[in-house]
Amino acid sequence: MVSPLTFTIEHGSTSCGARTGVIQTRHGAFRTPAFMPVATKAAMKGLSPAQVLSTGSEIILNNAYHLMVRPGDDLVARRGGSHAFMRWHGPILTDSGGYQAYSMSDMVKLTDDGVRFRSVVDGAMVDLTPERSIEVQNNLGADIIMAFDDCAPSIDPATMNRTRQRLAEGRSGLASKGYDHAKRLREAHERTIRWLERCRRAHRRPDEQALFGIVQGGTDLDLRRLSASSVCSIELPGYAIGGVAVGEGTQEIRRVVEFTAPLLPRERPRYLMGVGYERDIVAAVRAGVDMFDCVLPTRNGRNGQAFTTTGRLHLRNAVHSEDDGPIDHRCDCEACRGGFSRAYLRHLFLAQEMLGPTLVSMHNIRHFQRLMLDIRRAIAEDGWSLLAARWPVISDGPAAARPGP
Amino acid sequence: MVSPLTFTIEHGSTSCGARTGVIQTRHGAFRTPAFMPVATKAAMKGLSPAQVLSTGSEIILNNAYHLMVRPGDDLVARRGGSHAFMRWHGPILTDSGGYQAYSMSDMVKLTDDGVRFRSVVDGAMVDLTPERSIEVQNNLGADIIMAFDDCAPSIDPATMNRTRQRLAEGRSGLASKGYDHAKRLREAHERTIRWLERCRRAHRRPDEQALFGIVQGGTDLDLRRLSASSVCSIELPGYAIGGVAVGEGTQEIRRVVEFTAPLLPRERPRYLMGVGYERDIVAAVRAGVDMFDCVLPTRNGRNGQAFTTTGRLHLRNAVHSEDDGPIDHRCDCEACRGGFSRAYLRHLFLAQEMLGPTLVSMHNIRHFQRLMLDIRRAIAEDGWSLLAARWPVISDGPAAARPGP
Repeated sequence: MVSPLTFTIEHGSTSCGARTGVIQTRHGAFRTPAFMPVATKAAMKGLSPAQVLSTGSEIILNNAYHLMVRPGDDLVARRGGSHAFMRWHGPILTDSGGYQAYSMSDMVKLTDDGVRFRSVVDGAMVDLTPERSIEVQNNLGADIIMAFDDCAPSIDPATMNRTRQRLAEGRSGLASKGYDHAKRLREAHERTIRWLERCRRAHRRPDEQALFGIVQGGTDLDLRRLSASSVCSIELPGYAIGGVAVGEGTQEIRRVVEFTAPLLPRERPRYLMGVGYERDIVAAVRAGVDMFDCVLPTRNGRNGQAFTTTGRLHLRNAVHSEDDGPIDHRCDCEACRGGFSRAYLRHLFLAQEMLGPTLVSMHNIRHFQRLMLDIRRAIAEDGWSLLAARWPVISDGPAAARPGP
Repeated sequence: MVSPLTFTIEHGSTSCGARTGVIQTRHGAFRTPAFMPVATKAAMKGLSPAQVLSTGSEIILNNAYHLMVRPGDDLVARRGGSHAFMRWHGPILTDSGGYQAYSMSDMVKLTDDGVRFRSVVDGAMVDLTPERSIEVQNNLGADIIMAFDDCAPSIDPATMNRTRQRLAEGRSGLASKGYDHAKRLREAHERTIRWLERCRRAHRRPDEQALFGIVQGGTDLDLRRLSASSVCSIELPGYAIGGVAVGEGTQEIRRVVEFTAPLLPRERPRYLMGVGYERDIVAAVRAGVDMFDCVLPTRNGRNGQAFTTTGRLHLRNAVHSEDDGPIDHRCDCEACRGGFSRAYLRHLFLAQEMLGPTLVSMHNIRHFQRLMLDIRRAIAEDGWSLLAARWPVISDGPAAARPGP
């Protein structure tokens, strides 16, 4: 079998688990540790592929769930797959659709076979099984595809406040009266392993698309160890840590990632799903994680929230109305380098001009790519204190929280 | 006095009144006949200045009314004016705000002094006089600024259906019982001349900004002749034809423009405001018009309507769902040349992705710039039949209608 992916480690940190490397796919290479911005529906919101490239992004995400329900994975396949459809010629990763099916939809049934839910597009019943998820991802044709797993909540809903409880119920597999969190986690773990085997058997393009397994286990470190051991016993091109940053705080994220990352094979890429803020990324890199994705840059960008090395700015605030400076003096993105002032960006948001979300999303993605550049340099030079000096936000930023689905 | 603008005629058609030329401003030159896309609020909707440049646009419009009410012309002046604020380094033209004040707002009072209306932003009372309009435009700092005129309706509201009547009432100067259309037109004409003198006296930057006068007169050719004679008796760097395409059909537009354009001085740029569809532009060019502006490319682009040489496409239509072709095979815009298919664009509109409006607006602006390129070539080579062959839409396109304010 031809390998759909090769991972070359270039530098290992002498003081921690961090490493730099290069992952080669059929659509080109990307450097690790890598940040992957999210083009949910095969579009990076208001950014053209050329503008995404200008942020230094080398690999992007598509969401299988969204493209399955609209325009349909079969239609995308007939267009030549995601790359041809959206005109992004670099590497793409698709998630399995599981996380969205659990968290976004009216999930009506969870069985050993899979999940049944109502489509957010037209309310139609949709069945998502390991086989169907892989079929969808084979159709979309991404370079890296993800196993379909049973996404139990990381935290016992009983310990959450009511809002979080309601949110978690969708993710919990129909949590209701008589719910036993420990039992649910074990069930999800066992089902995830059975489903991973089904995913691997269903995979029709193993020479072209690298299937990654996902380690679950919530905040229970024993279960994480068990999950890592079971998932990694199946030989795959890469492994991911799932079920992190789904409501727990930054300390808890750190504890789980620092425990789990070293359990994954050293010679394979390690991907921490859905994380996150700058400080969480740096901590995970130090634990040995290679790949990250997050919707924060584009989601916050759309709302006028800009990331800077010293913290986040709310560009709608009146304090920016006469500020001729860029979002971040240290930034070289099209918005900052192009001289678009905070005053102008504030105007765009107040006037509801689409250009505002576009410029700030572009800045925010570049912000994370600049962080990854500096992280890779810190690894190669073992210069962690210099990194902390250049990025005050990684020492005293806001508490971590994963944005919703 | 230093001239803020020079106009050099390069070719005159041997068969009609058309001419090509170059207009030089302090912010660079643009070729005529020119199409100016509209960046109402100092932003071309979802397009960055670099993307606007990629369409071949050499001059753009800002609307004085919108920028006066938000963020305020004084704030823009403190940022260095429109060019610095929006990072567009080429020529800019601002309208006087009159058209918007009449048509968009709750106009509460029209007197010899000016108009009073409610701001669409916060409901505050705003007075717009010739002096204030010029002050706003001096603050914004565009290369070409427009006289503030009394915008009477072109058509007698009594002859309109009720919807048009209600629309026209805002434009008519509080038309009500006892309204005498002929009298209203004469009054508007006389007031426009008085206001033009006041604009010229109020203009504080005549060395930097070229003030254009506006000929009114509706569809009454005698009144057009009188207006042209009066307006052109005041020596100005350029003259515009206003009050066209405000509800009348394509034949009527043509009749008025073909009559009025030759009445304006041959050696000055002639600007037909707010027009329009391709066939209207070609007819006006042949009558000797040099400059055009219209919101159609961006407004229709936002709604998924694309212009092509053979007519307009509605990209949301199901017929495009599996179409791998570009919007227009003849087009060299970023969307068509970049390989974005009709199927993908349809997906973007159905999924409400901002990238759809951006790509189609970019295409639509390029469509009009390609038309202008071909028109300039037709003038230089007197190749009008070749133009008609390449642009079927100018022979059998839809009836003309000016989009609303």
